[in-house]
Amino acid sequence: MVAYNISSSFADTLRHRRQKLAQLIDFPVILWSGSNSPRNFKANTYTFRASSHFLYFAGLPLPNAAIRLEAGKLELFIDDPEPGSALWHGETPKRAEIAEKIGADVARTLSELKHRGSNAASIPVQNYRTSLVQSQVLHRDIASPSDLAGLDLELAKAIVTLRLTHDAGALAELRKAAAVSVAAHKAGMVATPKAKQEAEVRAAMEGVIIAQNMTTSYNSIVTVHGEVLHNEAYHHPLQSGDLLLADVGAETEMGWAADITRTWPVSGKFSATQRDIYDVVLAAHDACIAKIRPGVEYGDIHLLAATTIAEGLVDLGILQGKPEDLVEIDAHALFFPHGIGHLLGLDVHDMEDLGDLAGYEDGRKRSDRFGFSYLRLNRPLHPGMLVTIEPGFYQVPAILNDPQNRAKYQNVLNWERLSQFADVRGIRIEDDVLVTSDGSEVLTAALPNDANTVENLVTNVSN
Amino acid sequence: MVAYNISSSFADTLRHRRQKLAQLIDFPVILWSGSNSPRNFKANTYTFRASSHFLYFAGLPLPNAAIRLEAGKLELFIDDPEPGSALWHGETPKRAEIAEKIGADVARTLSELKHRGSNAASIPVQNYRTSLVQSQVLHRDIASPSDLAGLDLELAKAIVTLRLTHDAGALAELRKAAAVSVAAHKAGMVATPKAKQEAEVRAAMEGVIIAQNMTTSYNSIVTVHGEVLHNEAYHHPLQSGDLLLADVGAETEMGWAADITRTWPVSGKFSATQRDIYDVVLAAHDACIAKIRPGVEYGDIHLLAATTIAEGLVDLGILQGKPEDLVEIDAHALFFPHGIGHLLGLDVHDMEDLGDLAGYEDGRKRSDRFGFSYLRLNRPLHPGMLVTIEPGFYQVPAILNDPQNRAKYQNVLNWERLSQFADVRGIRIEDDVLVTSDGSEVLTAALPNDANTVENLVTNVSN
Repeated sequence: MVAYNISSSFADTLRHRRQKLAQLIDFPVILWSGSNSPRNFKANTYTFRASSHFLYFAGLPLPNAAIRLEAGKLELFIDDPEPGSALWHGETPKRAEIAEKIGADVARTLSELKHRGSNAASIPVQNYRTSLVQSQVLHRDIASPSDLAGLDLELAKAIVTLRLTHDAGALAELRKAAAVSVAAHKAGMVATPKAKQEAEVRAAMEGVIIAQNMTTSYNSIVTVHGEVLHNEAYHHPLQSGDLLLADVGAETEMGWAADITRTWPVSGKFSATQRDIYDVVLAAHDACIAKIRPGVEYGDIHLLAATTIAEGLVDLGILQGKPEDLVEIDAHALFFPHGIGHLLGLDVHDMEDLGDLAGYEDGRKRSDRFGFSYLRLNRPLHPGMLVTIEPGFYQVPAILNDPQNRAKYQNVLNWERLSQFADVRGIRIEDDVLVTSDGSEVLTAALPNDANTVENLVTNVSN
Repeated sequence: MVAYNISSSFADTLRHRRQKLAQLIDFPVILWSGSNSPRNFKANTYTFRASSHFLYFAGLPLPNAAIRLEAGKLELFIDDPEPGSALWHGETPKRAEIAEKIGADVARTLSELKHRGSNAASIPVQNYRTSLVQSQVLHRDIASPSDLAGLDLELAKAIVTLRLTHDAGALAELRKAAAVSVAAHKAGMVATPKAKQEAEVRAAMEGVIIAQNMTTSYNSIVTVHGEVLHNEAYHHPLQSGDLLLADVGAETEMGWAADITRTWPVSGKFSATQRDIYDVVLAAHDACIAKIRPGVEYGDIHLLAATTIAEGLVDLGILQGKPEDLVEIDAHALFFPHGIGHLLGLDVHDMEDLGDLAGYEDGRKRSDRFGFSYLRLNRPLHPGMLVTIEPGFYQVPAILNDPQNRAKYQNVLNWERLSQFADVRGIRIEDDVLVTSDGSEVLTAALPNDANTVENLVTNVSN
C-alpha cells in the first residue's frame, strides 16, 4: 500500500461525514471496499479501485477492508499483512496505523465482522467475490442496486443526500483532478501535430495523468470519430481535415474524478463548417453554464442546451422552424442525442451504481422522449453540487439513416445543407461546474474552449 | 470493438492450433472469453482482457463470447450488438464477420451454447460472473484451477503442451510486444534526468506503450525501492544517488506479453558499489542466457544464477566461502530470493492460472528450500519456449533483519563489508529469451544492459 499524502484535516473530514450520516439514519451500516479483480491470472490484477461509498467514509483505497458506521462511530475491519508479504510488498501500514490515519474508533480483523452484520444496512459492491462475503455477513442477498429496499434503500438515500453536496475535503480533491485533467488536455493538443494515430494523442494525455500518480477516471475517448459516443478505439490515423474529440479525465489517488471533453482540429485550423458547428456547441455550453445557480432545474439546463443547439442549426440552415418547436419534436436530438451532463464526484457519473437514485429527484423518472431519455440528472441545483456541462453535435449514421427519423423529420431537416457539414462528425465541449451559493464556478476553466485559443494551442507548438 | 489489424495467416494459425489440440484430445472443449469487470459502477469497467486460453484459439479479444472446439472444428458463440449499440459504440462487426475473420466453421448466438455443454471440458475463467455461466452450461462447477480433474485436467495438459511451444503467429506478436517494451525502457531512461518522482518515469514508459495501442502486460514496477519486489507505488522522489528499477512490459492488442527489467542510476552514473553489484547481476544474466539451449533444465539455469551471484558476492567480500557451498545453504537467497524467471506468452507468467501445471514438469513439485521455492519454472527447455531470465540483488530488510537468518548465516556473511553497499537497495536485469533449435535468441536484445551503455542512455539526453 502506498504511503498516502494525507492532509491534517483528513480524519476530521471523515468524522464530519459519518456524523452527518448519523443525523439521517439511526441504524448500523457496513460498507466494503472490494478486492482486487484478477485480469488473466490471479496474481495479475486490474489496478484496484475501492468502492466509492467506502471511499467516501473511509477515505483510503484499502483493498479487502470494511467499515462499520453507527451513531457517528467508525469501526475499521482489515487484516494485517501476511507474514511473507514484506518480501514482495515491503513494509505496509498495519491495521492500527490505518485506523489512526482515518480516525477510526476501533480496528478489528476482518473475521470479527462476521458477527456484526445483523441489522446492518449496506450498498451492493461491484466486485463479485466481495458481494458473496457481503451476503454472508449480512445474512441476505443485496446483490442488485435496483432491488434496494428497507434499510438499504434508506441508507442509499442518506448517502445520496450527503454525496450530492461536496464538502471542502472533496472539493480539494476534485480541484486536483480537474487541474491534472486540464494539463492532460493541453498536452493532447500540443501532441497532435506530430501524432499519426489517435493512440499517440491519448498517450500524451494519459502520460500527464500517470506522471501525477493519478489514474483515468474512465476509459478515455480520443478519436477522430466523435460521432461514436463511447468510442474506445484509438487506431485511426489522424488526417489533416479531421476533428479530434478527446474526453479524458483524471482521478486522484483517493478516487475523486474529473471529466473534460475538448474537440480540436488535427491541422490546428477549423474549417469554416467545423467552426460554425463548434460555435453552436460552444454557445450552448456557455448559455448552460451562465444559467447555473441554486434552485435552477438541471432539466431546464438540458432544455436550454437543446434549444440553443436547435437555434444555432436553424441559423446555419440545417434545421428549419422555431427552435422551441424543434425541441418539442426532439429534432435537436438528431444531432445531440445525449443529456447535457451528469453528477461528478467519486464516480465520473456520480453514484450511478445506485441507478437514478442520485440523478433523479425522488418521484421523477426518466422520460421516454428521444431527446430526454439519456438525461442522467434531473434535480434542482443546490450549492456544493458538481455537474458536467457537455453539449455536443454528432452525425451518427444510426440516427440520421434511420428511416423513421428520416420520415419524421423530413420537413425540418435540410439534407442538402447538412451535406455541406460532412467534415463535422462529432464535437463535444465539456466542463466541470460547481454550483455555488451565488451562481457557479467552472473547476476546469483553466482549459480554453474558444475556437481561436484552441487552434493556437494546437499550432503554436507545432511550429 | 476495434477493427483488428489481422495478418493474412491469422485464421490459418488458429486452425493449426485447434488441429493440434484435436491430435491430443478427443472430446469437445468450450472456452469462454469473460466479460467486462465493473470498476466503480457497471458502465465504468476495467479495460477488458479476454481469457488467455480463449485468445489462443479464438485470436480476438471479444468480450462475452465462447468457442466450442471439437475434432479441429471451431464454433463461435457470440451475440450481435444490441439495436441501440450503434449510437454509443458505432458500427461493430457482426457475428458472421467475426466468424469469418477467425475462420470459425459455425457461428451461433450465446444462448445456443446452453445445450452444447454436456461432455465438454473447459478451463476456469478469472471473471466471476462468467464462471457462473460456465457452471450452468457445463452442469458442474469448475471454479478452481487447483481442482481440475478428469477431462478438464486432460484439456489443461493438452493446452499446456501447445502453449509451451510458440508458433510463428505467436512469435510475431511476442516480437511486437518486445520491441515496444524496449522502446518504453529507452524512453524511461531518457526521461529520468528531468523526472522528480517515480511516476514521471512510469508515465514516459507507459506513454510509449499506449501510443502503440498496446497495454501493459502487468502493473508496472518503477521504483527507487527495488528491494520491494512487487512495488506498485510511484510516489517516491528521485534522488541523485538512487538506482531506479523499472519492470515494465507491453501486451499486444491480441494479448501477447513482454516482460523487461532494467535498473539504472538516476544521476546517469553508477557509484562504484552500485556498479560492482550491477556487474555481478549482469554476469549471472549473461551466464544463464549463454547456457540456454534445448535439453537444458531450467532449474539448472536457476542454480547457475545462484552460483554466479554467490561467486560475485564472494569476490566482493560480502559472502565468504565456496560459491557451491553457499548455494547449498541458500546463502545466495539472502540477496536473490526469487526464481531466475518464468514462462512468457499470452500471460506474463504464462499459464499461471493453471497453477504449476505449465511451469513444472509432470511429477515435479515446488522445493521448500528458501532459495528455490519461488522458482516458477522447472522443466527441460525445448525449441519454441519463451522464458525470462531475470537475476537480481536486493537488500530486503525482512530477510536481512530476520534473526533466524542472521544466526544461520553469521559465518558466511560479512556485515561490515555489506554495509559499504548501502546504496544498492535493488537491482534486476531481465530479458525475454526464446529457446531455439541451436541455442537461444534474446527477443529484447535491442535494449542494452551493460552498465556503460545504460549510463549513456540516461545521460546523453540530459545534456
